[in-house]
Amino acid sequence: MRDVAVIGIGMMKWGELWEKSLRTIFVEAALKAIDDAGVDHIDSMYVGCMSSGLFVGQEHLGALLADYLGVAPIPAVRVESACASGGAAFRQGFIEVASGMSEIVLVGGVEKMTDVTGGGATFALSTAADQEYEVYNGVTFPGLYAMMARAHMERYGTTRKQIAQVAVKNHENGCKNPHAQYQMKVTVDQVINSVMVADPLTILDCSPITDGAAAVVLCPLELAKKIAKKPIVKVAGSAAATDSIAIHQRKDITHLAAAEQAAKMAYKMANVGPSDIDLAEVHDCFTIAEICAIEALGFVERGKGGAATEAGETALGGRIPINTSGGLKSKGHPVGATGVAQICEIVTQLRNDAGERQVKGAKRGLAQNMGGTCASCTVHILEVV
Amino acid sequence: MRDVAVIGIGMMKWGELWEKSLRTIFVEAALKAIDDAGVDHIDSMYVGCMSSGLFVGQEHLGALLADYLGVAPIPAVRVESACASGGAAFRQGFIEVASGMSEIVLVGGVEKMTDVTGGGATFALSTAADQEYEVYNGVTFPGLYAMMARAHMERYGTTRKQIAQVAVKNHENGCKNPHAQYQMKVTVDQVINSVMVADPLTILDCSPITDGAAAVVLCPLELAKKIAKKPIVKVAGSAAATDSIAIHQRKDITHLAAAEQAAKMAYKMANVGPSDIDLAEVHDCFTIAEICAIEALGFVERGKGGAATEAGETALGGRIPINTSGGLKSKGHPVGATGVAQICEIVTQLRNDAGERQVKGAKRGLAQNMGGTCASCTVHILEVV
Repeated sequence: MRDVAVIGIGMMKWGELWEKSLRTIFVEAALKAIDDAGVDHIDSMYVGCMSSGLFVGQEHLGALLADYLGVAPIPAVRVESACASGGAAFRQGFIEVASGMSEIVLVGGVEKMTDVTGGGATFALSTAADQEYEVYNGVTFPGLYAMMARAHMERYGTTRKQIAQVAVKNHENGCKNPHAQYQMKVTVDQVINSVMVADPLTILDCSPITDGAAAVVLCPLELAKKIAKKPIVKVAGSAAATDSIAIHQRKDITHLAAAEQAAKMAYKMANVGPSDIDLAEVHDCFTIAEICAIEALGFVERGKGGAATEAGETALGGRIPINTSGGLKSKGHPVGATGVAQICEIVTQLRNDAGERQVKGAKRGLAQNMGGTCASCTVHILEVV
Repeated sequence: MRDVAVIGIGMMKWGELWEKSLRTIFVEAALKAIDDAGVDHIDSMYVGCMSSGLFVGQEHLGALLADYLGVAPIPAVRVESACASGGAAFRQGFIEVASGMSEIVLVGGVEKMTDVTGGGATFALSTAADQEYEVYNGVTFPGLYAMMARAHMERYGTTRKQIAQVAVKNHENGCKNPHAQYQMKVTVDQVINSVMVADPLTILDCSPITDGAAAVVLCPLELAKKIAKKPIVKVAGSAAATDSIAIHQRKDITHLAAAEQAAKMAYKMANVGPSDIDLAEVHDCFTIAEICAIEALGFVERGKGGAATEAGETALGGRIPINTSGGLKSKGHPVGATGVAQICEIVTQLRNDAGERQVKGAKRGLAQNMGGTCASCTVHILEVV
């Protein structure tokens, strides 16, 4: 396998984009990434998207978006792994370049979630869970993560304030990210006392419904060395893993086994460990998810995620800054785009382009993207060459 | 890139499988493929599926099906390219093995279409077309292909009888395939005089709504030589291409430009031409589609697809047997499964295991799978080592 580099990134302001359609926002992000890469063509394209069929009545996004980006007849295909669709699409792009099949590959992620017909966004999102055993019985995602939060509090003594602190931190970071949907600070009290969604999680523990897209351009490292105008970022590790889709089948619902497994393989491939990572973007679809994720990735001991967050270890300037972009919580969570946007943030940081939210001297970053309650997970490790 | 072989195939009887769910039929086909390959594990899995969200309210099939197949925590992801989802998934599996990332990869395709909630199967299928320009104005797939048929008749003098002959031939082949949904013969008169769907296409010109799954196992050719118990089939060519998603943007709606482009690249990779192919499975979602496909693939001259079919050139025993499995028309068309089932048929033929429908001395076969009105297309060339 050839070494692969990320040579272009493209992000846009996320939010409720009523005046733009799915194809418009994808093309906007893709053109930015192509422009940033400085390439005049792409050879192949991947689209990460969870549920455009249910959200906007449109499947076949590979062909549609290649057409609207003006790059047909190149190969273009959609990759889906629920909320990990972006990370999964990135992994396919990585494998295609590493294989030698293609030289310059665009990976975009997109989701248009606000103007939904049919069963609404909650139904569309619930299709990431087990339709026959979980959804049929009335559980939705806030409910599933609320059970994980309760179990974590019970087992490890994690407090409500510690969980809320994830939202406080991520909104603070998001205020420094011009692309973030909610650039506003929140306090622990505000989080705890906002509208209850699924006890103990309030609306400020939940990531929002978002329209958005993100894109990156990949090429062989050797080619990047010839054409790149910015610091070159290499894909040092790429891994994916799965777990039982329904949480009732797991031994321990506070533990994200697929994240641990994917991290183990990505660390091995990159020949590093958790302590070698300078910053990470993790999948905080709910506040409790970030706590479970930093434990599974090995940044903190099992059960200590809440305490570490409260102690500021994961804040900007802390031991291991987590979600400098604002995370899903503040930046927004257009599900299929999230995994690709995580890569954009890591590359921005490794290029030393993150402005106010820059992690000083960042040389190596990790992106963890998960689907459902972590029934699928991708982990990527990027480093400056 | 390493050479890659198909060492296992798994098919099931397709039809209206009211008593089985999506996960059940996928696992059935996957276990058959694993058993046929004689392997005791798989390293990674791809699922081709078009629209499980709209058909059965379930996305996240990679994780769900890895779980129910009992292979978690391996990587598992869904690939979607409308009705070319199966071919696209096969291509991703091929690239992953060729890259060296994994050794033994399962590729399955699945669709459960009969017990549909919500907008129904016609709406779900229409999401393969351009939602904003085609579907919004009321066009469905029979209508789009009917326009292509009318244009072909007008431009090339293709007759209604020639178009109907595709159905006659494919049903004749399907009678020899125990997995086919409709094992019954039809006559040209029956096709022409059956219920009108979209003039000139009647219901017997249309492929049916089907529940079904299919699976194959891939591994490096060198490994196949050590472990295979059956004739080894190598993936000699793999290509994918795209075209404008809406047919009103094409110069010539009788020409499948993406199929021609993908075929060109696949022939180049395999270092062969159309005359070196012994048999092909092509995407006959409607009778007219087969006529356009055999022209785009170079098996017959442009405009001569109807005449060649009428002359028996594409029948079993003809110059270039097309759709010996019965094709989508008789075997059924569970959209995400179709592209994988095409690979199963080619491998069956190349192993000389096709019984009554065997093409004598078949050494090299081609599978062409397309999405929508060929806005996306994959072409694979397989040959006996």
